Amino acid sequence: MSIIRNPELALSGRQKIEWAQSYMPVLSAIRQDFEEKKPFKGITITTSVHLEAKTACLALTLSAGGAEVHATGCNPLSTQDDVAAALASMGVEVYAVYGCSEKDYTAHLRAALAAKPMIVLDDGGDLTELLHEDESLRQNLIGATEETTTGVNRLKARQEAEELLFPVIAVNDADMKHLFDNRYGTGESTWDAIMGTTNVQISGKTVVVAGYGWCGKGVAMRAAGLGGHVIVTEIDPVKAIEAVNDGFRVMTMDEAAGIGDLFVTVTGCKEVVGSRHFPRMKDGVILANAGHFDVEVDVAWLKKHSKETIVRRENIMGYVQSDERVLNVIAEGKLANLAAGNGHPVEIMDMSFGVQALAIEYVLSQGKGLPSKVIEVPREIDAKVSGLKLRSMGIMIDTLTPGQEAYLKSF
Amino acid sequence: MSIIRNPELALSGRQKIEWAQSYMPVLSAIRQDFEEKKPFKGITITTSVHLEAKTACLALTLSAGGAEVHATGCNPLSTQDDVAAALASMGVEVYAVYGCSEKDYTAHLRAALAAKPMIVLDDGGDLTELLHEDESLRQNLIGATEETTTGVNRLKARQEAEELLFPVIAVNDADMKHLFDNRYGTGESTWDAIMGTTNVQISGKTVVVAGYGWCGKGVAMRAAGLGGHVIVTEIDPVKAIEAVNDGFRVMTMDEAAGIGDLFVTVTGCKEVVGSRHFPRMKDGVILANAGHFDVEVDVAWLKKHSKETIVRRENIMGYVQSDERVLNVIAEGKLANLAAGNGHPVEIMDMSFGVQALAIEYVLSQGKGLPSKVIEVPREIDAKVSGLKLRSMGIMIDTLTPGQEAYLKSF
Amino acid sequence: MSIIRNPELALSGRQKIEWAQSYMPVLSAIRQDFEEKKPFKGITITTSVHLEAKTACLALTLSAGGAEVHATGCNPLSTQDDVAAALASMGVEVYAVYGCSEKDYTAHLRAALAAKPMIVLDDGGDLTELLHEDESLRQNLIGATEETTTGVNRLKARQEAEELLFPVIAVNDADMKHLFDNRYGTGESTWDAIMGTTNVQISGKTVVVAGYGWCGKGVAMRAAGLGGHVIVTEIDPVKAIEAVNDGFRVMTMDEAAGIGDLFVTVTGCKEVVGSRHFPRMKDGVILANAGHFDVEVDVAWLKKHSKETIVRRENIMGYVQSDERVLNVIAEGKLANLAAGNGHPVEIMDMSFGVQALAIEYVLSQGKGLPSKVIEVPREIDAKVSGLKLRSMGIMIDTLTPGQEAYLKSF
Amino acid sequence: MSIIRNPELALSGRQKIEWAQSYMPVLSAIRQDFEEKKPFKGITITTSVHLEAKTACLALTLSAGGAEVHATGCNPLSTQDDVAAALASMGVEVYAVYGCSEKDYTAHLRAALAAKPMIVLDDGGDLTELLHEDESLRQNLIGATEETTTGVNRLKARQEAEELLFPVIAVNDADMKHLFDNRYGTGESTWDAIMGTTNVQISGKTVVVAGYGWCGKGVAMRAAGLGGHVIVTEIDPVKAIEAVNDGFRVMTMDEAAGIGDLFVTVTGCKEVVGSRHFPRMKDGVILANAGHFDVEVDVAWLKKHSKETIVRRENIMGYVQSDERVLNVIAEGKLANLAAGNGHPVEIMDMSFGVQALAIEYVLSQGKGLPSKVIEVPREIDAKVSGLKLRSMGIMIDTLTPGQEAYLKSF
Repeated sequence: MSIIRNPELALSGRQKIEWAQSYMPVLSAIRQDFEEKKPFKGITITTSVHLEAKTACLALTLSAGGAEVHATGCNPLSTQDDVAAALASMGVEVYAVYGCSEKDYTAHLRAALAAKPMIVLDDGGDLTELLHEDESLRQNLIGATEETTTGVNRLKARQEAEELLFPVIAVNDADMKHLFDNRYGTGESTWDAIMGTTNVQISGKTVVVAGYGWCGKGVAMRAAGLGGHVIVTEIDPVKAIEAVNDGFRVMTMDEAAGIGDLFVTVTGCKEVVGSRHFPRMKDGVILANAGHFDVEVDVAWLKKHSKETIVRRENIMGYVQSDERVLNVIAEGKLANLAAGNGHPVEIMDMSFGVQALAIEYVLSQGKGLPSKVIEVPREIDAKVSGLKLRSMGIMIDTLTPGQEAYLKSF
Repeated sequence: MSIIRNPELALSGRQKIEWAQSYMPVLSAIRQDFEEKKPFKGITITTSVHLEAKTACLALTLSAGGAEVHATGCNPLSTQDDVAAALASMGVEVYAVYGCSEKDYTAHLRAALAAKPMIVLDDGGDLTELLHEDESLRQNLIGATEETTTGVNRLKARQEAEELLFPVIAVNDADMKHLFDNRYGTGESTWDAIMGTTNVQISGKTVVVAGYGWCGKGVAMRAAGLGGHVIVTEIDPVKAIEAVNDGFRVMTMDEAAGIGDLFVTVTGCKEVVGSRHFPRMKDGVILANAGHFDVEVDVAWLKKHSKETIVRRENIMGYVQSDERVLNVIAEGKLANLAAGNGHPVEIMDMSFGVQALAIEYVLSQGKGLPSKVIEVPREIDAKVSGLKLRSMGIMIDTLTPGQEAYLKSF
Repeated sequence: MSIIRNPELALSGRQKIEWAQSYMPVLSAIRQDFEEKKPFKGITITTSVHLEAKTACLALTLSAGGAEVHATGCNPLSTQDDVAAALASMGVEVYAVYGCSEKDYTAHLRAALAAKPMIVLDDGGDLTELLHEDESLRQNLIGATEETTTGVNRLKARQEAEELLFPVIAVNDADMKHLFDNRYGTGESTWDAIMGTTNVQISGKTVVVAGYGWCGKGVAMRAAGLGGHVIVTEIDPVKAIEAVNDGFRVMTMDEAAGIGDLFVTVTGCKEVVGSRHFPRMKDGVILANAGHFDVEVDVAWLKKHSKETIVRRENIMGYVQSDERVLNVIAEGKLANLAAGNGHPVEIMDMSFGVQALAIEYVLSQGKGLPSKVIEVPREIDAKVSGLKLRSMGIMIDTLTPGQEAYLKSF
Repeated sequence: MSIIRNPELALSGRQKIEWAQSYMPVLSAIRQDFEEKKPFKGITITTSVHLEAKTACLALTLSAGGAEVHATGCNPLSTQDDVAAALASMGVEVYAVYGCSEKDYTAHLRAALAAKPMIVLDDGGDLTELLHEDESLRQNLIGATEETTTGVNRLKARQEAEELLFPVIAVNDADMKHLFDNRYGTGESTWDAIMGTTNVQISGKTVVVAGYGWCGKGVAMRAAGLGGHVIVTEIDPVKAIEAVNDGFRVMTMDEAAGIGDLFVTVTGCKEVVGSRHFPRMKDGVILANAGHFDVEVDVAWLKKHSKETIVRRENIMGYVQSDERVLNVIAEGKLANLAAGNGHPVEIMDMSFGVQALAIEYVLSQGKGLPSKVIEVPREIDAKVSGLKLRSMGIMIDTLTPGQEAYLKSF
C-alpha cells in the first residue's frame, strides 16, 4: 500500500514522467527489451533514489521487466509528490512524501524493505545501512547497486572493515556514469539552478569554483562558457596546474574569498568556505554548493554568528554580518542543482540509469554467485549503454580494420 | 488609486525588489543623486514596462527624484502581482494585473495616462499609440523615452510619415543599452529559461539559432559555452560569414530543420520556423523564440494543422503531427526569457535603466526645447552610466596622456 | 624594367603564389571573370602593398584583366624576394627588394609611378603622398583605392584640409574587409607569429591585450582559445565593459604591467607600454605589437635606457634592465604578424583583395565621374564578395519570402 | 670525442639554450640543487632524445650534477646542429648530425653507449634495443628511464615476454608528464606548426581530429579555440560521447573525409586516413599527423598511387590525384609539431624533464636494488615537480585543516 501525499496529483506527475521518458532513449530501449523478456518476473526490487520524473522512469523500467517494485526517496526534500502519485497509479508501491519528518522518512525506508527484496538499488547508502542492521530484511537479498560516489565510499569502508554482508555493484564507477553525470550533469544543472534562483548575470562575475575534480571541471567549464571569470581553488597541485592550463586562475580560498562574486563548492570536504573566509567576502556575494553534503559551505557557522537572517528570494537566505555585509546562501548550502533546481538533465540520467537497469539484471543473472564485495560494473554494460546512446543520436563511429588490429598488437 | 491583484502580496514583492536593487549599483547611485536633488519634484511620469522587480526599481528611482509615478505593464503575461502590490505600497500608482484581458490591459494603459503625464516611458509603443490618438492625454507632455528596438522602429516609421507629435529619446540605441542588453542579456536569459523549463541537456545537442544580429550572437555564444553544437541561419551573407568565423556552421533553415534538436529564433521577422520546416523536423524537437513578437515560430500554423495538442510540462506545449512526431513549443512562441523565465539578468537591466533614468532627466531639462523627432541618447549619458558601472565593479581603466592625445590628433 | 633581388628565385616564388592562389577562391573567380572580359585592357595600374604571395595574386588578377601592372612594396622589410622574382617573370613590372635602404625604397615608389598610372592601389598612403607632391605623376590618374585604416585616416585629414586631389575608395571600410581582416586575421596571425617566434606556452600565461577594438577583440578571443588568461586594457569604458562581459579581466596598464607574462598592443596609439610600465614588469616578459606602427611598445625608450641588449632568438631582442630583469621584444615592436610571421591567413586576404579588385574595376567604370573625396565601397561589391565567399565554402543561406519582406516593411 | 656538424654553430645554439633555460624554472631549480649536491659525481649517463634546446637543458642539468653525459638524438631529422655544437662546447659528449643516414644514426647511438653508462635515458626505445642486443654495453648499467608512450609500450611487451633485462622508469606515465605534455603540449604545438607551415585560416575550417585520447583532446580543444569547426573520429564509444558533450560532432572517417578541410591524426594506429578516404576528399585538403609514427596518414599509398607530386611550400607536399584533386601533406606525415614546427612549448618540457632528472636521480639512489621491470615514477617526484611548478608561477593552493582531514577519513 503506497504512502503518498495525494493520489489526485497523478496527472501532473504522469506528464512529467512522459516528458522525461521521451528524452531517455537508452532506458527506453532497455525497457522495451525487458518488456519482451521479463527478466524480473516474480522478483521484488526495492529502490531508494530522489523521487522525481527521471527516477520514476527507472522504476517503471524494472516494473516493465516483471519486477514488483517498491520505491522510496533518498532525501525528503527531493521527492515530488505528483510524480510519487503517478508512479503509485502505474503499479509501483511508493513510500515518499515531500518534506516529511526524519522519522517518517526512516519509516518509509523500512516500509520499502518490508517486502524483503531480492535486489536493492541504493543512493547514498541508507538502505544498505538498514539491511546491515536487520537480518530479517535481507533474507531474500542476493545483491545491491549503489548510485553515488559517497555511497561507494561508505561501502568500501565497510568492506575494508570486513563488514560488508552482500555484493554491491558500484554503478557510480562505470564510465558511462561518472564521466558524464559528474562533469556534464553537474556542470549544466548547477548553473541552471543558480541562474534560475538568482536572476543575476553570470558573465563578468568572478566565479570561484572550489575543487577541480570531475564535478569541478564541469562547473568551471560551464561558468566560463557563460562568460564568468573563473578562479579555481584546490588542494591537489596536479589538478591546480591543470586548471591553470585550462585557462583559469588558481589561488587559495583565503585570497579568493575577497575577490569572488559567486562561489560554488564541489570538493567532497567540509567547511571549504567557512569562518576564515566569510569576513573577507564582499557585500552581496552568492554562495552555492554543488557537492553531495551540505557541509561544504559552513552554514552552521553563519546561522550562529550572523546578526540577522533575511529571506532574499525563494531558496536564498541572506546572512547579515555585524558590518552589514550580506552573504547570500542558496538552498541552505544543500546540493543546489537538486534543492534549488531541476537536478541533472534528463539525457544524463538516461545513461546513468541505463547502467543501473543493466547492473540489476546482471546481479540477478549471477544469482548467489557474487562475492560480498564492492563489484565493478562489467565492461559489457558500459559498452551496451554507450552503443545505445550513440545509436539514439544517430552517430556512427569507426571500427578497427583487421590490419589496424594487427598493428596495435605488434608493439 | 492603484489597480492590482491583491495588496497582501506586497511582502513577497518587496523581497524581490530589494534583491534586485542590491544588484543594481548604477541605478542605486542615480537614485541617491535624485533623492538629494529631487529633479522631478511636481512632475508626473507614466511608465509602461514589464512590471516586475527590476522595473519596479526604475519606478522607485523616479519616485525618489520627486516624481508622481503612474506605472502600468506592457504585456499582461509579464506582470508579477506581488511586485505590483509592493510598488503600490511604496507610493507609486500601479495599474497592472497578471493575465488580465486585452480589454482590461488597455484600460490600465488609459488609467496610467489619465494623470496627464509630462513625461512618458514606453516599451514597445503602446502608450505612444494612445497618446497620438487622444490629444487630451498629451496636454502636459513634453517628451517620451522608448526602450526597445521594436518601439524605435515604429517611431521611425511614424516620423517618416511626418506623424510623430512629440520628441522621443531612443534609449534602445544607446551603447550601454543595446550592446549589452541584446547580446549578454538575451544570451544568458534565453538559456536560463530553456534549461529551467525543459530540464534537457544542452551539451551535445544541435542548437539552431535563427538570426545572427546582436541577440543571435549572444544566444549562439552561450549555446556554444554550454556545449551545444550551434548552427546559425541568416539572410545576410556578411553575418553568415561572421558566424562561420566564430566557429558555427551556417546553412538554410530548410536544411537545419532536419538536423536540429533545439531551435531558437531571434530575427525580428515572421515564420522563420514555419510550415516548410515543421515536416522535416525530428520527433521531440524543442522550439523557442527569443525575438520580440510571437510570430517567429509559426505557432498559428501548428495550432491549425496539428493532430493533437498535449501539455508536456509547464510552459511547454507538444504539437502532435499526423505522423506522430511531437514538436515541443516553449511559451507558445512568446519571448521565452520573459514568458518562461526570469527575464534579463538584474545587472543588465541596471545599465539599461540607468540610461532610462538619465534620459528622462534629460527630457525634463530640455523643457519644450526638443524637436518632435526620434532623438539619440546624448553621449554624456552613456559615459555616465559606463563610468558608474565600472566603478561598481571596482575597475579602473586607462586615460590618454597628453602626448598620446597629441599623437592621435596628428594623423 | 623590374628591379628585384635575383631572377633565379622565381621558382620558389611561383610555388608560394600557387599555394596562395589555391586558397583564394574569391579572387580566383574574379580573375577568371577579368580574363574573359579584360576590363583593364590598355590601362596602367600601380600597386603598393606588402610584396608577398597573397598580394602577388592580386597583381596577377589585375594583369589577367588586361592591365599593365607596376608593383612595388609598402615596407622594405615585408618584401619577399622570391615572390618579387616570380611576379616579374609573369608579366608584372616589379620594383621591390627586401631590406633595401629608405632611399632605394622611395626610388622604387617613384619608379612604380613613372608609368603614370590611371589607377593606383595604395597601402598606408605613401603613393598618395607622392602623387600629391608631383603633378606630372598623376596626369592620367582617375582614382585610387586605399587598403588600411591608417591610410584612410590620412586621406580624411587631407580631405578635411581640402587638399585631396583625386577620388580614393576606402577599401578598408568595406564590411568584407574590416569585419574579417581586423578581427579574425589579426587574431590568428598574431598568435601564429608569437608561438612560432618564441616556442613558449600560451596556455596558463597571463596575456595582456592593450586595446579592445576589432583587432583587440580578435587577439583576445584567440588568446583565450589557446588557454591564455586574458587581461584587457582600454581607454573606452564601453569597450572595457564589453571585455568584462566577454569573460576578460580589465584593469589599467599600470596594474597589468606587474601581472602579465605576455603583452600584445593593438591600440593605434603610442607608448601604450612604456617607461611607466617597464620597471614593474616581471623578468622574462614578452612584448609584441599587433598595431600598424612600431610606437605602441616604446622600444625607443628601451634602447636608450637598457643596460644591455641581447639577441635571444631570431626576431627576439632581450633588453636587460639595471636590476637584471630581461624584457623580450618581438620584431623590435613592429607589427608582429608581418615582421615575425606569415601575415594574415590567405583566405582573409582573399576577401580583402576581392574587394580591392572590384573597387578598382569600379573606379575605372566611373571614369572621371567620381568626386575628389574619400568614397565608400559600393554595397554591391560587399555583396558580390560575400556571395562568392559563401559559394566557395558550399554554404547556402536563407532569403526572405515575399510574405516576410512585406512583414518587415509593415513596421 | 663529439660527432657534430660544425663547432662554429655553437653561438646560435647557446642563444637557443639560454632562451629555453629561462622558461624552465622547474629544471633550473633542480639543476641548482644538483650543482650543490653533485649526485652524479663519477657517473656516466647516456641520453637519446630529440637534440634541440630544451633537451640540451636536460643534459646540462645532469652534467651540472657531476655526470659525464653522452648525448645522441632519437631521430636524425629533429637534431639541431647549432644546439649540438653548443652542447659539445659546454662539456657534453655529443653524437648527432641533422639529416644523417640511417647507418650513421645507428653509429651515433652506439658511440653514445660506448662509454658504458650506468644510467640511460631513452625516447622511443632505440637505446634499449641496442642494450638488449649487446651485453658488453650494459655492463655498468643499473637502470634506465623512458620518455614516451611508445617506448613504454615496447618495454611492457618485452616485460611480458620476460625479456626485459634491466629496470626502466616509465617517465611517460607520471601525472606531471602525460597530463600536460600530451594534452596542452600537443594541442598547442600542433597548431603552431600547422599555422606556421600553411598560412591558411583555421577559423571557419572544418577540422577533423582522428582520436580523442589526451592528445586528441588537446588538438580538438585548441582547434575550437582558434575558431575551427571540429569533427572527431573515434573507435571508442565512451570517448566519442565525451567528444559530443564537449561540443564536437562525431562521425566515421568515411563520412568526415568528404567534409573536412584539414585533418589531424593522433590515434597511435596506422592508416587512419588512408586509401578508403583519399578519394572522397575535397581538392586542397591539408593532412597532418600529430601521432608518434608516420603511418597514421597513409603517405606510402599516396606516393604509390598519385599522378604527380608537387612541392607546395616548405614541408608541404601536394599529391595530385587522377581527377586533379590535390591532397596536401605536411612533413610527409611525420609528427607535425616536431618535423614542421618548434616541438612542445618550453614550459611543458620543463615539467616533463623535471620528472626525468629526478627519475634518474632515483634510479641511482636505488643502486642495484630495482627489479628488472617497468617501474612507475614514485609519487614524490610528481609532488616535487608540481610544487616547483606552482612556486614558479607564484601560485599558492589550499591545504587541508586537521578538521578536514579527519572528516575525509570519517567515511
